[in-house]
Amino acid sequence: MEQRLVNLQERIGYRFVRPELLKRALTHRSFGADHNERLEFLGDSVLSLSVSRLLFDRFAGSDEGDLTRVRAHLVREDSLHKAALVLGLPDVIRLSEGEAKAGGAQRASILADALEALLGAMYLDGGTEPANALVQKLFGEMITGTTAESWRKDAKTELQEWLQARRLSVPTYRIAGVRGQAHAQTFDVACDVPALAVTDTGDGRSRRAAEQEAARKVLLQLQALPESTIAARLRD
Amino acid sequence: MEQRLVNLQERIGYRFVRPELLKRALTHRSFGADHNERLEFLGDSVLSLSVSRLLFDRFAGSDEGDLTRVRAHLVREDSLHKAALVLGLPDVIRLSEGEAKAGGAQRASILADALEALLGAMYLDGGTEPANALVQKLFGEMITGTTAESWRKDAKTELQEWLQARRLSVPTYRIAGVRGQAHAQTFDVACDVPALAVTDTGDGRSRRAAEQEAARKVLLQLQALPESTIAARLRD
Repeated sequence: MEQRLVNLQERIGYRFVRPELLKRALTHRSFGADHNERLEFLGDSVLSLSVSRLLFDRFAGSDEGDLTRVRAHLVREDSLHKAALVLGLPDVIRLSEGEAKAGGAQRASILADALEALLGAMYLDGGTEPANALVQKLFGEMITGTTAESWRKDAKTELQEWLQARRLSVPTYRIAGVRGQAHAQTFDVACDVPALAVTDTGDGRSRRAAEQEAARKVLLQLQALPESTIAARLRD
Repeated sequence: MEQRLVNLQERIGYRFVRPELLKRALTHRSFGADHNERLEFLGDSVLSLSVSRLLFDRFAGSDEGDLTRVRAHLVREDSLHKAALVLGLPDVIRLSEGEAKAGGAQRASILADALEALLGAMYLDGGTEPANALVQKLFGEMITGTTAESWRKDAKTELQEWLQARRLSVPTYRIAGVRGQAHAQTFDVACDVPALAVTDTGDGRSRRAAEQEAARKVLLQLQALPESTIAARLRD
């Protein structure tokens, strides 16, 4: 085995029983038929489970809404890209000459995908434990000393900032319904962003709590929109 | 342990070392503080990995695009709801009196969430293998005799049907660019659905292939939209 793959295995803390899986994980589609995309499919779920387990254990008192938010943050392309750089993946990724010349070894999407593929290969080769350990090494420090709640901005504030950054007007909130008896009411609130034709509802034991949930759900919708779609909607 | 929990363990093919995890997985938030939402957070990823592994093994020759599509289909709420009914979860879910009277034990979202929580509890108690085995039992038959490709309709047709079902006009396709030399060109095609302000692009070695990919990506965006958002956009 090449020395740099030996070194990579030291960095990830795992020695492959089937080194061909490691090679495949590092092979971009441009390089040849034996590429890493199926491993990336698997690794996407391995990553999600390893991160979920890390957060479940570390943030034992946090509710699933906060855990979900931190998880979404950690599995984002830019977090994976940074982790791939820490592991030195640009030096070991296999690309076509054309893709390499075009700077592919530095492209965030290629590196993030390769990291997922690597986790998929580790899982196939050795089960979930090696992947859990690597994810803990890569992401454990990022969350050390934080709480799940500290990753949460006030959702209404965050939504307003997101819209302001795009010079869009503030969202509107309206009560869509009130359920239950006086001592245990549940409020339904709708949050609308007319400029982008996005709306969603939240409920809660107070109007404010319902607004926060509605804002959070709208924000998740907005964050999932490709920039091209946002641009198209603003053109209309 | 209650007899019906003993029976449930037979149906899922796993006996808990820590039965309190099983109980918690079956406890809806309305019932009390010891509810299943954190287990659902974990189980969501367990489910994804178990389904991914099943598809990775069964569809050994399929590319990750097709695998991703089948996975999305299997982890949808209605698939999980059906599987929860097969396991008899309505008989064992613990709800507040109010929620039970309102028919909560039959609600698709409550049952789907409980199934995810159950998978999360199985993982905490016994690792990934019991969850893999249950997912194989629940979803293995659904995919037996199929290919990953057979879950794929022609994306342009599917998109058109989706739009027609909502009395919306057909999408437009336009070539956004052509890259590469004559013998190895790559086409970039944009697909627009003006009525819903959704757009996306695809690329491929032929115009048709690029159109298919663009249609597929637009369709994924549309399928991710809550009905309330679609309604709001159509109102505008």
